[in-house]
Amino acid sequence: MTRERLYLFDTTLRDGQQTPGIDFSVEDKVAIARMLDEFGMAYVEGGYPGANPTDTAFFEKKRTHRATFVAFGMTKRAGVSASNDPGLAALLQAKSDAICFVAKSWDYHVRVALGCTNEENLESIADSVKAAVSAGREAMVDCEHFFDGFKANPDYALACAKTAFEAGARWVVLCDTNGGTQPSEVREIVSKVIAAGIPGRNLGIHAHDDTGQAVANSLAAVEAGARQIQGTLNGIGERCGNANLVTLIPTLMLKPAYAQRFDTGIPAASLAGISRLSRNFDELLNRAPEPQAPYVGSSAFATKAGIHASALVKEPATYEHVPPESVGNRRRVMVSDQGGKSNFIAELKRRGIEVGKSDRRLDTLISLVKEREAMGYAYEGADASFELLARRTLGSVPEFFRVESFRCMVERRYDAKGSIKTVSEAIVKIQIDGEERMSVAEGHGPVNALDIALRKDLGRFQNEIADMTLVDFKVRILNGGTEAITRVLIESHDSTGARWWTVGVSDNIIDASFQALMDSIVYKLMKNREMAGLVAAE
Amino acid sequence: MTRERLYLFDTTLRDGQQTPGIDFSVEDKVAIARMLDEFGMAYVEGGYPGANPTDTAFFEKKRTHRATFVAFGMTKRAGVSASNDPGLAALLQAKSDAICFVAKSWDYHVRVALGCTNEENLESIADSVKAAVSAGREAMVDCEHFFDGFKANPDYALACAKTAFEAGARWVVLCDTNGGTQPSEVREIVSKVIAAGIPGRNLGIHAHDDTGQAVANSLAAVEAGARQIQGTLNGIGERCGNANLVTLIPTLMLKPAYAQRFDTGIPAASLAGISRLSRNFDELLNRAPEPQAPYVGSSAFATKAGIHASALVKEPATYEHVPPESVGNRRRVMVSDQGGKSNFIAELKRRGIEVGKSDRRLDTLISLVKEREAMGYAYEGADASFELLARRTLGSVPEFFRVESFRCMVERRYDAKGSIKTVSEAIVKIQIDGEERMSVAEGHGPVNALDIALRKDLGRFQNEIADMTLVDFKVRILNGGTEAITRVLIESHDSTGARWWTVGVSDNIIDASFQALMDSIVYKLMKNREMAGLVAAE
Repeated sequence: MTRERLYLFDTTLRDGQQTPGIDFSVEDKVAIARMLDEFGMAYVEGGYPGANPTDTAFFEKKRTHRATFVAFGMTKRAGVSASNDPGLAALLQAKSDAICFVAKSWDYHVRVALGCTNEENLESIADSVKAAVSAGREAMVDCEHFFDGFKANPDYALACAKTAFEAGARWVVLCDTNGGTQPSEVREIVSKVIAAGIPGRNLGIHAHDDTGQAVANSLAAVEAGARQIQGTLNGIGERCGNANLVTLIPTLMLKPAYAQRFDTGIPAASLAGISRLSRNFDELLNRAPEPQAPYVGSSAFATKAGIHASALVKEPATYEHVPPESVGNRRRVMVSDQGGKSNFIAELKRRGIEVGKSDRRLDTLISLVKEREAMGYAYEGADASFELLARRTLGSVPEFFRVESFRCMVERRYDAKGSIKTVSEAIVKIQIDGEERMSVAEGHGPVNALDIALRKDLGRFQNEIADMTLVDFKVRILNGGTEAITRVLIESHDSTGARWWTVGVSDNIIDASFQALMDSIVYKLMKNREMAGLVAAE
Repeated sequence: MTRERLYLFDTTLRDGQQTPGIDFSVEDKVAIARMLDEFGMAYVEGGYPGANPTDTAFFEKKRTHRATFVAFGMTKRAGVSASNDPGLAALLQAKSDAICFVAKSWDYHVRVALGCTNEENLESIADSVKAAVSAGREAMVDCEHFFDGFKANPDYALACAKTAFEAGARWVVLCDTNGGTQPSEVREIVSKVIAAGIPGRNLGIHAHDDTGQAVANSLAAVEAGARQIQGTLNGIGERCGNANLVTLIPTLMLKPAYAQRFDTGIPAASLAGISRLSRNFDELLNRAPEPQAPYVGSSAFATKAGIHASALVKEPATYEHVPPESVGNRRRVMVSDQGGKSNFIAELKRRGIEVGKSDRRLDTLISLVKEREAMGYAYEGADASFELLARRTLGSVPEFFRVESFRCMVERRYDAKGSIKTVSEAIVKIQIDGEERMSVAEGHGPVNALDIALRKDLGRFQNEIADMTLVDFKVRILNGGTEAITRVLIESHDSTGARWWTVGVSDNIIDASFQALMDSIVYKLMKNREMAGLVAAE
């Protein structure tokens, strides 16, 4: 039986940008578009070119290889022709494969927000779609407030949708803009739209989570016949967020009712990487992943000691709605972690470290990692620090140099002219081959000063670290106020193209940064030796 | 038209206790039971007496006044009589109004987990229910794995449910224990159970959020005829959590499809307090509330500048699926770099600051906010810093004190015994009323030391800030490596229950923290005067 195609439309970069507290830079957008494209989304909506400098810059290039790259914008204004509308011109200039127009489909909003007649609005829809199509773009129309509009005036809402379809829109997207529509209403209204003559294969659904049912509303629309689903990574978006694609995709691909009927175009390998995608995205947003997130949360397959735990150990499959590996997650039975040991062996093997299952040092490593993760270390995001810890526990890592002491100082005062002056300075005392070296540096802040001082004079190792750069520095406060535990993650890279992450944790941000900086330098020196086959010689 | 009664059953204290990372003390349970009882829940399930010392102690007294107080436990074991089963005895000793028995209803689990015959399991259900009823308790049965069991062996799953009902159970609760069932399956299976002879008024639904549809599954069951809904506050619970009652209750009470048909027994005044209930519960769990939570989150009625903001200011109702006040929440039109003039005026008005549309100082404020947001300030998340900036630009804020200079120092070295010692110290020089004061403090890190030193001696203002606490501290690196721009957000609160956010931005994390700390203190002093009507007198 051939399965019907379902199209996943990602609007993380557009509606996701409306999330309070989230602002993407052009670099963020480039990185996220790449993640989405590689994952296998059918459509990636990048933003609203012409509305702000970030989005305009982002659309200077096409940013996807496989996915259809979509620009979002308004239909032309009433009273000007399509060719004279500056907003539409900006949209057509954007380097996109497709254009998604947002159009009012609630007559009330046409009057109040647009201030034009119902007929003028229909004309704007038709002309905008035609302009996009004749410029060689795939056209689609987001029918804003469709469900509320349909309840108020079904004829006009349908007229908007039909106008878009008849003008040549590939997709007519029914939007629950205010997010209050219930699944049974979605099912009923989508069915009526299909009955009115727009085929389901041309209908999309855009749901919001204001009653906690964006996922259910999306699935209800699909059951009624719609074949495009709009949503975002981790459900970010305006107010309560959009439909969470990270939740929807595993349901569509693993639940028989959907998997047997539909092909999402997402490769199975991507599904197994969806937990990582979700965590990487939170990492990029610099926020803690939601532990209870469906499928991908750290608690999604966790069972506390209780009535289920012992039975779960005996027969895991009957206590899990899908296998955790299918979404790249793992089982956690919080009484005794049976799966732990083999996970560790596999993880170490991946790094070229062989260790036997009965090796006592392996137990030491496992308990050390658990202990340190309880303190706030996150080895999942800091592979270089994990490898250093593993090599130190299972074998040895040379002590290339030793930091005897360091001191950081930040001073803020008014200078002679009465303007504020802030100075950051760091002093580092290092011992290499029995010889002491002191370095001092000023920097943009205490961590930067420490970073510069630490890498200023490493004696005979100095030329080895010359090609190393710190490319990212992330700080997360793990709990509470200014005395809280701080986790610092540092990403480094070098001229060979290698990238590695290190972690430091302390109640002192300078100390946490120091740990991560040290791990980064030592990892680099270790890798240099490993590549030269020199570890044994040290 | 009389509405049908729907019964809300809260299992925060029982299934919520299975949440990884959540452990209630007896005091916690007493406080939560009181919150739930006062709110108007029909049933409050308190835990599993006999299973652990906390729950046993909690059931030494009845803990609700209005709500039916429920003890949870297993049906009697096979092979012993009801009167000889120690687990059942513990349950009957507990001071509860009702007993909820958990019973296997999937034949596979009867065999594997209980190790008894299907008939013995039915006998355990019947005898346990009868024992509870003859002890004067309301009896109910959670049919564990009901939906998966029904798919595997519908006859046996139905036999379990019917046995419970016929033995006298007030409620037969259909549990989606593994959380993977889809709403359309719930609807279909609940209908079949009713068709098999158990009336909907005796059926309950217990849904989990493993596919993000616990709310939708609960509503699907109600639409099919079930009349009891089990769930938890803020959706805590095993793995991905239970159905979120904080989301379900407003939907049931405000959406016409439900509100016209059903009476939840929750008073309207409680509904208007549901945002507070949700936040108080998070407070008790010592965790940050989810900003995107439906109905109650701080972002649930927030709109960022963009295509909706200006229309929303004109016609809020048509951009909101329910009025924010109906759930005790509020509308937020967020200040941001894309914000228009009307947003600013509305936002200022809410803070009691009146300014005319043509006032030149308003233009100054808008360009100042844009300029500072381009530098990295995020006023949408820092309302107190925004208000200070606005008041300083549009009028004046007294200079309560002036920080002449500060110095922070972090030193790490080996002490005499060879162990690492890290010390953080801050020195602050302040001028108040022409008089200089110096304070010095050590802290857990440089920011903590600075915080302590800054609030150590504010002269005549010292007693005014005594009740102020910093409750959250967030750091975001805005770009690149260790020389990057850092944004610090600080949340403070005081004994009146007020909470406010302040922001600082700098390439120096200490300096950014200093700005946010200063804003927090000055805001508090300003608010104190405003409340006392003293601003003019300063």
